[in-house]
Amino acid sequence: MTVYNFAAGPATLPDPVIKQIQEELPSLQGSGMSILEISHRSQMFDNIINTAKQDIKDLMHVPDNYHILFFQGGGTGQFAAVPMNLATNHHRIALLDSGHWATRAGDEAANLGVKVDVLDSTKDQHYQELPHMPHAISADNYDYLHITTNNTIEGTAYHQLPEHGNVTLVGDLSSNFMAEEYRVEDFGLIFGGVQKNLGPAGVTVVIVRDDLVKHVDHIPSILNYELFIKKNSMFNTPPVFAIYATGLVLKWLKQQGGIAGIEALNQKKSSLLYDFLDESKLFHNNIKKSDRSLTNIPFKTDDPDLDKQVIAAADQAGLKNLKGHRSVGGLRASLYNAMPLAGVSALVDFLHHFEKQH
Amino acid sequence: MTVYNFAAGPATLPDPVIKQIQEELPSLQGSGMSILEISHRSQMFDNIINTAKQDIKDLMHVPDNYHILFFQGGGTGQFAAVPMNLATNHHRIALLDSGHWATRAGDEAANLGVKVDVLDSTKDQHYQELPHMPHAISADNYDYLHITTNNTIEGTAYHQLPEHGNVTLVGDLSSNFMAEEYRVEDFGLIFGGVQKNLGPAGVTVVIVRDDLVKHVDHIPSILNYELFIKKNSMFNTPPVFAIYATGLVLKWLKQQGGIAGIEALNQKKSSLLYDFLDESKLFHNNIKKSDRSLTNIPFKTDDPDLDKQVIAAADQAGLKNLKGHRSVGGLRASLYNAMPLAGVSALVDFLHHFEKQH
Repeated sequence: MTVYNFAAGPATLPDPVIKQIQEELPSLQGSGMSILEISHRSQMFDNIINTAKQDIKDLMHVPDNYHILFFQGGGTGQFAAVPMNLATNHHRIALLDSGHWATRAGDEAANLGVKVDVLDSTKDQHYQELPHMPHAISADNYDYLHITTNNTIEGTAYHQLPEHGNVTLVGDLSSNFMAEEYRVEDFGLIFGGVQKNLGPAGVTVVIVRDDLVKHVDHIPSILNYELFIKKNSMFNTPPVFAIYATGLVLKWLKQQGGIAGIEALNQKKSSLLYDFLDESKLFHNNIKKSDRSLTNIPFKTDDPDLDKQVIAAADQAGLKNLKGHRSVGGLRASLYNAMPLAGVSALVDFLHHFEKQH
Repeated sequence: MTVYNFAAGPATLPDPVIKQIQEELPSLQGSGMSILEISHRSQMFDNIINTAKQDIKDLMHVPDNYHILFFQGGGTGQFAAVPMNLATNHHRIALLDSGHWATRAGDEAANLGVKVDVLDSTKDQHYQELPHMPHAISADNYDYLHITTNNTIEGTAYHQLPEHGNVTLVGDLSSNFMAEEYRVEDFGLIFGGVQKNLGPAGVTVVIVRDDLVKHVDHIPSILNYELFIKKNSMFNTPPVFAIYATGLVLKWLKQQGGIAGIEALNQKKSSLLYDFLDESKLFHNNIKKSDRSLTNIPFKTDDPDLDKQVIAAADQAGLKNLKGHRSVGGLRASLYNAMPLAGVSALVDFLHHFEKQH
């Protein structure tokens, strides 16, 4: 049975990448050593990390005045690192509360002593649409504006960035990182854990504009941008395997036509499911159409028990991990880069069949 | 050609573990999903992380009042986490300066605002012997005493722990973690990156006594012990693959007779090399005999150019990564748990042959 994995992350990876990892596992590049065993100070790893950086630069058209860094600790680590490194002038940031992960980012910054102004929130709308800028803001007041470009749990995404005047924009791109095109120049800083669209859990990419990185004392070294820039992300032992695996996915992404190519596929995949849901009399997605995510699609029937039946029957049919996040309920299909169109077709066929039987 | 990898870490792993990872890669436990793709919220991963915890508990005889946690960020992350979580009463710690990594731990704590008293240092002896406690200390003055049980670069190890009175002992065990027996009860906290004796880079084990963990505000969540205890090390997405791979090494370690079994082998391996070096007229190890490490053995000739020749010729013979750390020079053989006796024999034979030719 073909298995399709709709998990919200860690998530499905391209088959050819899994195959390549498997083939290269006992001996990387004929070295007689596994990627799990090589030193991060070796020429082999130097090539791996620098190639991965170059491929990110190529794929996202990263300008020369931005650094590309690899951290451990996930998006949650960056919820701390970004304010510690960047909120050093006003100690005050602005935030658009678009859901769970935006809230978490704001809470972490506040806990570290930064004043967080939530400019708009769609909590009262159950985050089924995106918050927008209620008024102009200025760099005279804020170190940056934090947004979550794609809301993994709620299923919304900014396809147009909010107006942010001269305020530095910080984007948590984790769940649509390289799944949809953004202009790096529009951001002062971008971060994303790779475990959704780009690789296994264990590494987070940070892309930061050079002039924003200042010397900051009294913060943990593993969250210090200046140190990581100086040491090419190898201030301490980096997560060698996760960077290697991400590098393979980046090569695969180039073969798919880069981000433009994969975005076109992601549009097709998500439209297939949204079109079905919008026609269905049983299932529905409640997200405002212009704000719908390409990568995370929550949906439900009106009956929580029936939702459970659908999830169980889908699991039996090889359609895995469709349970929605507990805060939203129902089902959620995550259609990240490596989910093939065939997987979405199989899901839609299954849902269609279930609805007819019902 | 058989390749033996003497790297100081990331380092050689057991062949059967590499083989098992390779076999299980496309489909873990018949799930149709790779370990790189499964959710950390899945039952499969829950079993993996809990089994790894239990195996650490079994192998190290961890008492019930200690927590076993998995962090990202390596030993360097813990250099920050330990003072942030534990140095909350006196904001003052004691440290024995046994080398590079002890210094780094002290610097990180000091940078985070903790007063660090270096009670003894063997820097003037080029760290070729261990520092010892110059006088009794008391918990009335110090939150803890930090030691590095094994000094990866300098090649020393505490086989007997220093007297520490009623002061909590914190041990950075990274480079002899589960390579040599210690009593967990002697420590308040132990940490170790797994990338030397236990797995691939990307996960760090922390073992901490329950009463030491307090609620601490204003520190990054990814370094917060209380949060990680509450969430079974899954406050955020953990490094799934690195924990899985470590779990396989733990099972392998049990098959080797546990830590007592591997320590006996490590004694045998290191004695083989030390005995050769002590007899050799060309090569020598300058570490005080009672302080010699089982896992990291630096040695050299009296001629840096000749050292380079040895390293190059050894590399050609499949004996890899013997270059010493730049601060010490010469050569270094790291003989971690997964290095077989045959690898050390091959190295000794090579050095013996080189010496005769010379």
